[in-house]
Amino acid sequence: MINIIFLGTTSGVPTRARNLPSVFLRYGKERILFDCGEGTQRQLMIKNLKFMKITRIFISHWHADHFAGLLGLVQTMELEGRKEPLFIYGPHKTNEFFEQYISVGYFDHDFEISVQTLDEGDVVKCEGYKVTPFRVEHGIPALGYVFHEDEKVRADMKKAAAFGLSTSPKIGKLKAGKEVVHNGKTVKPEDILMRSPGKKIVYTGDTRQTSNIVKFSEGADLLISDSTFSADFEKRAHGFKHMTSKQAAEIAKKANVKKLVLTHISRRYQETKGGEKVLLDDAKKIFKNAVLAEDFMEIELK
Amino acid sequence: MINIIFLGTTSGVPTRARNLPSVFLRYGKERILFDCGEGTQRQLMIKNLKFMKITRIFISHWHADHFAGLLGLVQTMELEGRKEPLFIYGPHKTNEFFEQYISVGYFDHDFEISVQTLDEGDVVKCEGYKVTPFRVEHGIPALGYVFHEDEKVRADMKKAAAFGLSTSPKIGKLKAGKEVVHNGKTVKPEDILMRSPGKKIVYTGDTRQTSNIVKFSEGADLLISDSTFSADFEKRAHGFKHMTSKQAAEIAKKANVKKLVLTHISRRYQETKGGEKVLLDDAKKIFKNAVLAEDFMEIELK
Repeated sequence: MINIIFLGTTSGVPTRARNLPSVFLRYGKERILFDCGEGTQRQLMIKNLKFMKITRIFISHWHADHFAGLLGLVQTMELEGRKEPLFIYGPHKTNEFFEQYISVGYFDHDFEISVQTLDEGDVVKCEGYKVTPFRVEHGIPALGYVFHEDEKVRADMKKAAAFGLSTSPKIGKLKAGKEVVHNGKTVKPEDILMRSPGKKIVYTGDTRQTSNIVKFSEGADLLISDSTFSADFEKRAHGFKHMTSKQAAEIAKKANVKKLVLTHISRRYQETKGGEKVLLDDAKKIFKNAVLAEDFMEIELK
Repeated sequence: MINIIFLGTTSGVPTRARNLPSVFLRYGKERILFDCGEGTQRQLMIKNLKFMKITRIFISHWHADHFAGLLGLVQTMELEGRKEPLFIYGPHKTNEFFEQYISVGYFDHDFEISVQTLDEGDVVKCEGYKVTPFRVEHGIPALGYVFHEDEKVRADMKKAAAFGLSTSPKIGKLKAGKEVVHNGKTVKPEDILMRSPGKKIVYTGDTRQTSNIVKFSEGADLLISDSTFSADFEKRAHGFKHMTSKQAAEIAKKANVKKLVLTHISRRYQETKGGEKVLLDDAKKIFKNAVLAEDFMEIELK
């Protein structure tokens, strides 16, 4: 099971209702943040999520609204006695920026922070899943991320029985991709194995509409997309290197994703009651299964 | 009139109820922050305080819980089109740290940020008040600050009339400290002027108990003090270079201040309902007019 919780859903400026960008994802023992805007550690606390158990943080790009919560979170982890390493990833210059940022002031950390600069083509391989960065267009080095659960492989026990196999360790070998010989017959993995794809979640970070998002979002269970502006502000969106919710919906449709979450909502829509509805309306004209993110909104993928 | 609003009252780690340290002070057109912990800009918004009108920020020391809200606030000011300069002050290495901090990532600001490193002995002279830094003990360069409203000077019109002076421009000269000659008589400022002291507010930042706070707090209307621990944790307070609420009260008593606000409350007291009461109880045994700070608590000095 994968749990996704939206910790911050505004764009560059926080509001009373929406904190700065961060998406929390729990998978097994892993607790991942995509971006870590100012105030993320407190959002975690308010939602009763264990900030000490965060394992990995993926930064989409180095604008303060996407990273300014890192320093406080690291200081808190140190004050609370963290021992486990923390893994931080981000685009071009991430090692350099992080080093510059974390060494402001007098605070040291004793736990290991492993920082890795990523680019499209890299793969972060973890237990049961991988995270793949892809390039987006935001005027500075910026990445979107695909969280991809590993393919699930299980034996069809009826087919296995037809070969005389039951709980034999040979089934483990087949799962590991090896042929086995049983009762004098060669059994190939595809003879008895059933494969089902793992869940796929895409986070665009901040970006203009670009075909690269379609490419990397193909068939995703969930697309979490920049959706800063309404359709009537398409020119402005382009100028500020963001997307309209309509553009996000167009991508969702082309990529055949199952569900679209609109986030990174401009403050302009939040100032009037119900003002944000236009974003969802614009999107739904193109792609039905769209929702507007809210702080602390949860999505569960089984 | 001076308004003081507590934006963050926890110690190093935020909690559900308390954000990271920041004290807002409004005096005339000036809006000042003492410290700017992570999330300060959002606290300003929640309290409907105009973050764009902040004029000066005094940083007590360079631990992240006291400065990690600066970057986001500056980015927001830029995004919202600020033109007015912003003045930032802090202890030893403030220019260096600020430059390092503000240049992380890709965000530029077009408005002027004037940064000034201060030490005890310096005075920041502004319209109608001054701010005086003083050294405290926190293991790293750290300052407390005295906000001191200018002395109020007005003419006693009865005494002035005795010299034959009424609304003459000569009264202005006397107020400016000059002697005047009227009807052949020399009139000295002290002959007709009444002086009343301006309000005095002291913010300790993070510190051990030290006599220097007593010296600089003498007769203050308000002492806002580090009060991280309860009296039974005096050793721990010393080790972590903080104060107990009892020690804060001892200082308030010795310095003859009018009111004491206990802030920078350790998370340990917030975890149990009513757990913070011990801090106030400890303090009140020594100094009656003490209150425990809460986020968004307001104090008005007339």
